[in-house]
Parts: sequence; C-alpha cells; structure tokens
Amino acid sequence: MSGRGLFINMEGGEGVGKSTNLGFLENFLRGNGVDVVVTREPGGTRLGEDIRDLLLQLREEPVDPTAELLLIFAARAQHIAELIEPALAAGKWVLSDRFTDATYAYQCGGRGVKRETVAQLEALVQGALRPDFTLLLDAPVSIGMRRAQKRGDLDRFEQETLAFFERVRSAYLRQAEVHGDRYRVIDASQSLVIVQQALAKVGTELLSKQIHRSAQS
Amino acid sequence: MSGRGLFINMEGGEGVGKSTNLGFLENFLRGNGVDVVVTREPGGTRLGEDIRDLLLQLREEPVDPTAELLLIFAARAQHIAELIEPALAAGKWVLSDRFTDATYAYQCGGRGVKRETVAQLEALVQGALRPDFTLLLDAPVSIGMRRAQKRGDLDRFEQETLAFFERVRSAYLRQAEVHGDRYRVIDASQSLVIVQQALAKVGTELLSKQIHRSAQS
Repeated sequence: MSGRGLFINMEGGEGVGKSTNLGFLENFLRGNGVDVVVTREPGGTRLGEDIRDLLLQLREEPVDPTAELLLIFAARAQHIAELIEPALAAGKWVLSDRFTDATYAYQCGGRGVKRETVAQLEALVQGALRPDFTLLLDAPVSIGMRRAQKRGDLDRFEQETLAFFERVRSAYLRQAEVHGDRYRVIDASQSLVIVQQALAKVGTELLSKQIHRSAQS
Repeated sequence: MSGRGLFINMEGGEGVGKSTNLGFLENFLRGNGVDVVVTREPGGTRLGEDIRDLLLQLREEPVDPTAELLLIFAARAQHIAELIEPALAAGKWVLSDRFTDATYAYQCGGRGVKRETVAQLEALVQGALRPDFTLLLDAPVSIGMRRAQKRGDLDRFEQETLAFFERVRSAYLRQAEVHGDRYRVIDASQSLVIVQQALAKVGTELLSKQIHRSAQS
C-alpha cells in the first residue's frame, strides 16, 4: 500500500461500546493487511496522557470550560505532532478513540461552548487535518449510561447529568448531518453481532477507498 | 478604597530578581493599606499549578510549541475565572508574577510562535481583561543567567540556550514599547537598593492612580 494512510476516528457517548468495537475494527483491518496505529483522545502521547489525567480527575473546584477546552486542544496538538502526522505520512492508518468531533459533542453540546470557538482552535491546531472517516456509535442515553455505570467508579465526565449526555448525543448527530460525507452512523443499541457486521461493512468500504486512493497516486 | 482593584503583573527573564522584588512591592502596598492578592503564572490555582508542573518538567520527548502555548492559556483561563476576576471585582489588587506579556516574550520571542496566534488566544481567554500596570525588570541576559544558575537544578525553560533568552529579552522590550502606557521598565542590573527605590516610586504612582480612580467612581 502506498501513499498517505487513512485517519479514522470512532465516536460516541458513554457505554456505546467504543473499546470493544475499536478492537474489532483494528483486527478486521490488520487481517486485511493494513498497518494500523490505534490511539485515543485525550491522550495518545505521554504528555497527552498526563493532560488526560488532569481532565478526568475529580476536582473540588469547578473547572472553567475554556480551561478544559484548551487542555483538550493542547493534548491534541501534541498528539498530531508526535503521533498522528508522522504515522499518516509513513502510510500507516490511524484509528483514534475520539477526536475533535468529541469536542463539538462534549464541550459545545454538553458544556455550551460556542461552535465558532472550537472551529477557531481546530484551525489553529489542526491546519487542514481532518479525519477521512468518522464512525459514530449511536445509542439512546439510557442504554449507554446503564452500561457505563456497571464499569464502577465514574470520572469527572461520567458523573455528569442525563441532560448533559442527551445534549452530547444531539451534538454528535448534528455533526453527522453537517459532515455526512465522512460520517458513518451505526446503531449501537443493536446486538454486538449486528453492530460488528455493520463495522465490517464500513471496514470493507475503507479498504476500497484506500485502494482507489493508491491507484490515483 | 472602593471600586475595582488594580491588576499588576511583574515580568522579566531568568534571574532578574522577580521573587525578591515582588515581595518588596507586596509589602509596600500592604503598608499603604492595599488589600493585595499575590499570585503567579503559570499557576495560581490548584489546576493551574498542576499544569505548571507539566510545563516545567523535563521530558524525554520534544513538547510541541502549540501544545505548550495552549497549556499556558488553559492555566490562565482557570486563573482568571477562579482567582483574578473575583479578586478584582471585590476591590482587591492582584499582583501576578508573570501574565500574558510572558507568553509574548517566551512563546513568540523564544519559541517563534506567531504574535497573531497569541493575540487570538488572548482575546478568547481574557476578553477585555488586560493588566493595568506591567513592571518589567530588565537586565542583560548574562547577569540574569548567572543568578539563575546559582539556584540549582534548571527546569525545562531554564535549560534553554543563551540565544533563546536574548530573544525573550528583546520581545519583552518590544512589548514595553508597544504598550508604553502601562509598562514601567526597571533596570534590574542595578543594586537591590536602587531597584527597590524605583519600585517604591512606581508603587506610589499606583496608589495615586487608584485614588484618582476611586474619586471618579
């Protein structure tokens, strides 16, 4: 496979099965000969993981929404410079558990940060870099919350209200509408077998897209 | 004293005597009945101090300049929301060891980040908030470096090259030119007695400015 790799992010609210399905897609791609780097946001680098710890820690004092937003983009800047861009340039695929779509969902939808503010930081930090494909695992909030709560101790985000997660879900679905070209929405309330059939179908589409791209280059 | 407090930042490169002189100015103001909150950047809040640790730690991997810049502004957003704005609104004076002038000096001057990028983040994070007075302690880099090195282990910034600190100093002097109305430049290569005489003079000027302001409100 020649040329630049594909950049794919997997998105969704709490308890939609991101980890399990990210692992499934990773295996599917590797099984088809793709050299794929799996990573996550916030995080993906040592500095980024340190920032992630600050973001998820429960704190006594309220965290200013702009401070939270800038921490997320700081981690992202390091992630792009240290991992994402070098991997893509080397022809590897990057499969990230969340990217900027999550910022539109959680910070704009959840916290009420203006979309223009995020767009401004997106331009500053990413330049022209956008995911080639975004897989949104969508499920009603009640289903996801039930699954997430089974996992035990909740972090600073997981402790938010039901109304917060409803706004996050709506913001994700809005992103999917605005960026219909790169979004693939999968109904994550279905059984795992059905969800993974849908993922395999998307995986096949990604492979054909890459073959098409290589043929052009 | 009624109305909003004054916001003052003290600036300067390594080893110019910021800590000692900040303490002197604090005592001078308290001695004149001012309720003053002393703070620092990056830091000033618990989250801000955690971010400061990330910024100053020596790291094996290179830190992306945009990631560094966004961490600094994340700490600043929290600092303003949690400490600076409430203090000023309550009529207290805020005396900060560094503020955004340091970002223009270290990140623009030192690292080569564009001034427009910092201006964009300044507008996003600060709105209309700017210091009322900025005291720049200026000394030739060689003098400051000699003093800083005596303090022992150097952090990620203190380990920079002489050329880096020359650019930082130039950028500070440029800021002082652009914002001549609020800047007071003090020659920190002079003896401590002379420097503190100059500081007392500035302190007296600040007190008369505040009396003038209160009379208007």
